[in-house]
Amino acid sequence: MSHGFFTIISRAEFETLLKDFPPLEAQTVPLSQAAGRVLADGLTPAHDWPLTNRSCMDGYAVNARDVFGAGESNPGYLECTAHLSINEMPDMTIPPGECARIATGGVLPEGTDAVVMIEHTQEMDGTTVEIRKSVAPGENVMQRGEDAREGRTALPAGTVIRPQEIGLAAALGYDELSLFRRPRVGILSTGDELIEVHETPVPGQVRDVNTHTVAALVEAAGGVPTPYGIVKDDLESLSQALDRAIDENDLVLLSGGSSIGVRDLTVQAVETMEGSEILAHGVALSPGKPTILGRAKGKPVMGLPGQVTSALVVMHVLVLPLVRHMQGDAAAFDPTRRCLRKAELARNVPSKPGREDYVRIRLEEQSGQPPLAHPVLGKSGLLRTMIQAQGLAPIPADSEGLYEGQLIDVWII
Amino acid sequence: MSHGFFTIISRAEFETLLKDFPPLEAQTVPLSQAAGRVLADGLTPAHDWPLTNRSCMDGYAVNARDVFGAGESNPGYLECTAHLSINEMPDMTIPPGECARIATGGVLPEGTDAVVMIEHTQEMDGTTVEIRKSVAPGENVMQRGEDAREGRTALPAGTVIRPQEIGLAAALGYDELSLFRRPRVGILSTGDELIEVHETPVPGQVRDVNTHTVAALVEAAGGVPTPYGIVKDDLESLSQALDRAIDENDLVLLSGGSSIGVRDLTVQAVETMEGSEILAHGVALSPGKPTILGRAKGKPVMGLPGQVTSALVVMHVLVLPLVRHMQGDAAAFDPTRRCLRKAELARNVPSKPGREDYVRIRLEEQSGQPPLAHPVLGKSGLLRTMIQAQGLAPIPADSEGLYEGQLIDVWII
Repeated sequence: MSHGFFTIISRAEFETLLKDFPPLEAQTVPLSQAAGRVLADGLTPAHDWPLTNRSCMDGYAVNARDVFGAGESNPGYLECTAHLSINEMPDMTIPPGECARIATGGVLPEGTDAVVMIEHTQEMDGTTVEIRKSVAPGENVMQRGEDAREGRTALPAGTVIRPQEIGLAAALGYDELSLFRRPRVGILSTGDELIEVHETPVPGQVRDVNTHTVAALVEAAGGVPTPYGIVKDDLESLSQALDRAIDENDLVLLSGGSSIGVRDLTVQAVETMEGSEILAHGVALSPGKPTILGRAKGKPVMGLPGQVTSALVVMHVLVLPLVRHMQGDAAAFDPTRRCLRKAELARNVPSKPGREDYVRIRLEEQSGQPPLAHPVLGKSGLLRTMIQAQGLAPIPADSEGLYEGQLIDVWII
Repeated sequence: MSHGFFTIISRAEFETLLKDFPPLEAQTVPLSQAAGRVLADGLTPAHDWPLTNRSCMDGYAVNARDVFGAGESNPGYLECTAHLSINEMPDMTIPPGECARIATGGVLPEGTDAVVMIEHTQEMDGTTVEIRKSVAPGENVMQRGEDAREGRTALPAGTVIRPQEIGLAAALGYDELSLFRRPRVGILSTGDELIEVHETPVPGQVRDVNTHTVAALVEAAGGVPTPYGIVKDDLESLSQALDRAIDENDLVLLSGGSSIGVRDLTVQAVETMEGSEILAHGVALSPGKPTILGRAKGKPVMGLPGQVTSALVVMHVLVLPLVRHMQGDAAAFDPTRRCLRKAELARNVPSKPGREDYVRIRLEEQSGQPPLAHPVLGKSGLLRTMIQAQGLAPIPADSEGLYEGQLIDVWII
C-alpha cells in the first residue's frame, strides 16, 4: 500500500515554477474597465500635459518681478487690464505693471509667470489691485508638460492601473488602453462527499465550499472564474472535466481532494493529458502542503488542498500572485506588495523548521500602539480560524517560531 | 466682490455629518456576488457545521484509550475491522481493541474519538495495524458544530463578506444572502473648460479627468457609478442635471468646479432643490479644502474640489468611507481599516497646524528594515504626485509636521 509520500519543494521554488508561465496577450479595453489591470503597451502622449501653463488658484496672473518684495505692510499695486475666462487661450500680452484676473485652471497670458492668490489681494477703486504677497516665478502655476511630455513615455508597459493612472490616461486622450488579458480560471471540485450548496446534507456529506471561496478570490485578483461544479471521484470523469476546463481557460484549479486517494487521482488526471507534466507535488507550506502544480496543453493546472483553510492559504500565497502574474504584473509575487501591518504578538507561536507557516491572526487595536496580534489556532478543515482572523503571519521556514512581544508583519487578507 | 470665504469644519466633524446618512435597505444577492458587501441579516444555521465529527487526516479512527502510551519504540496493535468511505455515515460501532480506516473528511464511527495519521501507522499481516503514536481524545478530529451551531448566529448582521465568509455561508446552505444594497453614485462634471476624453483640446481646454478617476474609485469601494458627463457651468443646466442625478442615485458627486465661481454655482444648484440644505462648505483638509456637503431629497450631495489630486484625496478620505457606510459597513470610517504600512520618513515635512494634511509618499524598500518614505511634493492640479506615490501620510491637524527618521503610518492607496 502506498502512503502517498511525495517530494516537497519550498515556497520559493514553487513560485519560480509559477513565474515560468508567461503573461497572457494584450487586448484593448475601455478606460472604464481598466482599473487594477496592467498596461501591455506604454502610453506616449501626442501632446504635453498640461498643454499650457495654467493657474493653480483663483487670483491674478502677474509678472513675478512686478510684485517682488510685496507684503502686508508693503503692498504693491498693479493695473488689472484683463479678466480671463477659464476656457479661452488669452490672446493678449500683459505688459509690466499690469496683471490679469485668472481662475483656477486658466491659461497664463504672455508676460505673466506667476499667480497671486485672491486671498492676498484687494480690489481698489477702478482697475487697481493691491498685492499683499510676493510670488516667485512659477508660483501657483502648473507648468506645461509637468505631468507628461509629448513623445516621452508617460506610463510604461507593466504599470498597474490605479484611479490616478486612469486620470492621466483620460487627460492624455486615451479612452481605451492596451492591457494584458485577464486570465480565465476554471474551477473544478472533486470529492464524492460533496453536494451543491442548495442541497441538504445527510451525515457524511458536505456542501462544496471551495468552489465559492476560490471563485471569490480569483475575481478579487482580477481573474475571470468559471466554476465547473462537482466532478465525480473517478479518473474518467475527472480527466474529461479537466480536458474541457483546460481548453476553455488559461488556468485550471482543482479543489477538494484532501485525501491521498483523490490527490493521486488529480495527478493521474493531469498525466492523462497529452504532453502534460507534473511540476510539483507538495510544497513546504503549512497549511497547504498537498498542493500540486502541473502543466497541460501549456497551461498551469493546480491541485489545491481539500481542507478549506488550507485551500484559502494556498490561494493567497501562490494562486492569486499567479493570477496577477498572468495579467502582466511583474511584482505579483513581491511580498512587499501585500497589505502588511506591524503588530505585537500576544504570545509565543512555535513552528516546525523546514516549512513556512501562515498563522491566522486576530488583531486587537491598542490606542497609540501597534495592535496586538492574537494567533487563532484550529484545524485547517474548519473555517473558524479564517473567519476570526484579520490576517496571516508568515513564519519563515528557517525559524522555530515567533515570540510574545515580537513586532511582526501581519498580512491583512 | 465676494472672495468666497466659507466656514471650515474639521475632518472629524465632516465625518460625523456623513455618518448621519443611514445605510441603504437590504436586498437578496446570489452568493457569487456577495464578496466585499455587508450582511443585512445575520446567518443562523438550521444545522451544526460540521454536521458530525469528521477526520482531519487520512488514517485510523481509534478510541484514544486504546493507543495510550503508544510510540515508535512501544507500538500498539489494533484490529482494523472497517474501511470507511468518505461520503457515508458509518452504521457500525467500533469496539475496544479495534479501529477503522478513515479518509480526510470521513465521519468518525461510534466508539472512536480520535484519528491516528497514516504516517504513524503500519499495516501488518491481515487486519492488524501497528500504531506508533498516541493520540488525545479529539485529536485530528473536527468536532460537530465547531464552525457553527444550529440556531446560534454564525455571522452577525454587519459582517463584511470575505471569501471565508462566503465559504461558511456555502457550508451552511445559503446560496443567497441578505445584504445592504450597493449605493448608486451619480457623477457630474462641471467646468466650461472641460472636454470629453475622445476630443482634442485647444489651449485652454482640458479633458475631463475627475469623472474617470471618481468612477473607478466608487466602483472599487463597492458603489455603482453612473457618469452623467460634462454639465455646462450655468445654474439652470447644473440644477437640471443635479435634479435628475439625485432622482436616479443614492449619492451624487459633483466634480470639477475648482474655481470659486463654480463652487458657488454648486452650492446654489443644491439650494434650488426643495428641502435641500448645505451641511458643510469646506473642510480642514489639505489637499481638499473646497469640499461641499449638501442634502437634497434626503440624499447626500458632495461637491468635490476640481483639482485632480485634491479630488482623489477627498475621495479616499471622505467619499469612499461614505460609500462603504451606505452599504452597511459600520467601521467604514475607522482609520485602522486602512491598509497601513510603517515606514521611515526620508526628510522633514512641515505642515500648517489647524488642518489635516495628506502628503503623497513614495516608498523605497530597504532590506530588513521598514521602507523609506519619500514625500512627493507638487501641485494638486497635477496627477504627477499621485502617480509617483504608493500611499498617503496623514499629518494630524494639531501637528506642525513630521520629522526625518520618524516612523510613520503610510496609507497604501
